[in-house]
Amino acid sequence: MALIVQKYGGSSVADAGKIKNVAQRIAATRDEGKQVVVVVSAMGDTTNYLIGKALEITDRPDLREFDALLSTGEQMSMALLAMALKNMGYEAISLSGAQAGIRTDATYSQARILAVESKRVVRELEKGNIGIVAGFQGITDEMDITTLGRGGSDTTAVALSASLGAEICQIYTDVEGVYTADPRLVPEAQKLAEIGYDEMLEMASYGAGVMHNRAVELGALFNIPILVASSFTQSPGTLIHGGASMEVRNKVRGIAHDLDVAKVTMVGVPDRPGISAAIFQPLARAGVSVDTIVQNASIDNITDLTFTVAKSDLTKAMEVVEPIAKSIGARECVSDSRLGKISIIGTGMQNTPGYAARMFGALSELDINIQLITTSEIRITCIISDTEVKKAVRALHRALELEIPE
Amino acid sequence: MALIVQKYGGSSVADAGKIKNVAQRIAATRDEGKQVVVVVSAMGDTTNYLIGKALEITDRPDLREFDALLSTGEQMSMALLAMALKNMGYEAISLSGAQAGIRTDATYSQARILAVESKRVVRELEKGNIGIVAGFQGITDEMDITTLGRGGSDTTAVALSASLGAEICQIYTDVEGVYTADPRLVPEAQKLAEIGYDEMLEMASYGAGVMHNRAVELGALFNIPILVASSFTQSPGTLIHGGASMEVRNKVRGIAHDLDVAKVTMVGVPDRPGISAAIFQPLARAGVSVDTIVQNASIDNITDLTFTVAKSDLTKAMEVVEPIAKSIGARECVSDSRLGKISIIGTGMQNTPGYAARMFGALSELDINIQLITTSEIRITCIISDTEVKKAVRALHRALELEIPE
Repeated sequence: MALIVQKYGGSSVADAGKIKNVAQRIAATRDEGKQVVVVVSAMGDTTNYLIGKALEITDRPDLREFDALLSTGEQMSMALLAMALKNMGYEAISLSGAQAGIRTDATYSQARILAVESKRVVRELEKGNIGIVAGFQGITDEMDITTLGRGGSDTTAVALSASLGAEICQIYTDVEGVYTADPRLVPEAQKLAEIGYDEMLEMASYGAGVMHNRAVELGALFNIPILVASSFTQSPGTLIHGGASMEVRNKVRGIAHDLDVAKVTMVGVPDRPGISAAIFQPLARAGVSVDTIVQNASIDNITDLTFTVAKSDLTKAMEVVEPIAKSIGARECVSDSRLGKISIIGTGMQNTPGYAARMFGALSELDINIQLITTSEIRITCIISDTEVKKAVRALHRALELEIPE
Repeated sequence: MALIVQKYGGSSVADAGKIKNVAQRIAATRDEGKQVVVVVSAMGDTTNYLIGKALEITDRPDLREFDALLSTGEQMSMALLAMALKNMGYEAISLSGAQAGIRTDATYSQARILAVESKRVVRELEKGNIGIVAGFQGITDEMDITTLGRGGSDTTAVALSASLGAEICQIYTDVEGVYTADPRLVPEAQKLAEIGYDEMLEMASYGAGVMHNRAVELGALFNIPILVASSFTQSPGTLIHGGASMEVRNKVRGIAHDLDVAKVTMVGVPDRPGISAAIFQPLARAGVSVDTIVQNASIDNITDLTFTVAKSDLTKAMEVVEPIAKSIGARECVSDSRLGKISIIGTGMQNTPGYAARMFGALSELDINIQLITTSEIRITCIISDTEVKKAVRALHRALELEIPE
């Protein structure tokens, strides 16, 4: 019998009515003769409520205990969803991360899945049960409870899909799929029927927060087709897959943007081996996550080094790099905290010249100054003033004709 | 190193401030050089909140899922309490019922503890940790989560005490101990410094709801001294134990009362073998819990049979017994839903005559009509009108001179 894994996010199970709605959808899939495993997130604001409780105790909660606390959120929703299905006359059983065999390392709050020991899940499926698995959580060899960090429930769903050999992993959320651009900014943005893993990874890293990259990477690794769709409508959603049909389509698949960008430039850096390590290792130790790094071509062995961070990390980043700049003999450090990022993404861009020119041209027509440019094989990113991001997204969407349905 | 098990009830950990207060008390015990294992209930109204969530889904929740849901309450408080201790610089670790090895049968919502596999708890104690165990919950051989039903956290604490060889099990709650009568009714009621297991069992069954009988029985079985005391004061509390000093004390230890009593009398029952079974087996199957049963002496092979139930069970009880009365040829069934129960309790009463006479005399002076009398070796109980229970408790307390400190 074919097996489908479905994941429902927190907004899809935010209250009893929504849980019953989700139960109906699961039941409909079961009625199609499928085996079904469901991964469920914590209800609505439960996780924030639990975090608040911890912060009332201490502003630095012990991470092992924090995970034991947070994992109760998904345990609640799994039990309620299983109740709802049983109440409708369906055979269903809830399984915590521990019960479902989600084995992780002991990196509390950011645990990595080591293996899925799916014996129990398989046994329940064979008994005719719908398995309702708590997302976002796992268990160590010592039977200690862990949580998986951001995107954890999506990751649980894809990992279970791989372990159980599911035909598809369906991620149900509060958006209808992946769009050519954020529909809140660009009303004429088109929902994509499908997108490649690589393209989705670039879309997600560059700010289109539909699904966490970690789950997409896992899907790519095990070649699990992932459908992203809304739990509130019957709209078909977007299929993320590794299929070959992508080459022939519109070369740019979508535009991602991000308003949370700050920039640090170290000016007049002596260009010698070891300098980059001297700068970026201390930043990593200070917990500053560096996004883009650009080093300008060196003239007379003096170079400028620029990197971007989240706006909230800028002060810390400057505290770390200013003494380093002094010690290595750089001229000065300058920063700008009012930046944003806009990217065009598409596998087809690799072999087709001219996209960069079209992008820069569109921005230039709007008199937008480009502060930094970085590219990957399937992406071109410009850093611009954050106040200009919105109009840039709209203009680029038009310039690339993304409003035309596929 | 001596080991102490402490249990803190829901009102003792109702919010962050109270959890920190409890952490201070635990730390003080640790500072005395003791090993400490703490059993903790769900915070304040959490269990009721979770029950409410389940009832929003269905009015008959599946019991396995209900247990998975309810067990999150204690899991939250164990994690928060462990965080608070660690934040104070103490080594502590939370353990769910599963992690602490509380093995139960699979009777969801009312599971019985089969064994405590305390290997993990012992290991954590040897590492120098304070063990914070989620009360009220356990795990089956299949790794399914169970809850222990009423008095569950007390039972967890006493079972762990027995398994670990604790020197004492301290039950901290929102009352200061066991009193000669309910202090809300009898302002001059005295707190008992100690009480025997048997006396405590009679006190608890007869309405002095300080501790659940199940935990007291377990304490008696393994001879674990149990201290009941307040988590909000430093008052010494009441020690429940099996010591020998009880014989020489005041013969009546306390007065228990209960306002929730209804009575059913089957009049003119043919007195032949099998009649009682014909009546009480169907009541049990209907889920009606029968308390007192009294059968009057038989005259001409016709007898009257009376039993009491909780007021909320009276309608169901009458529905069950009326057809039975007809089928066995009894004359009629009559009921009274406005009754209460008052009991005097004390081990010393066994060998001392005259207590019954003093009790009946005191009630007679108040013109209180006694509807039923039942006794055990260490208890005398009268069923009276519920409106007269309060004044009866006060009068009996005075008549038996219980206001005089021991």
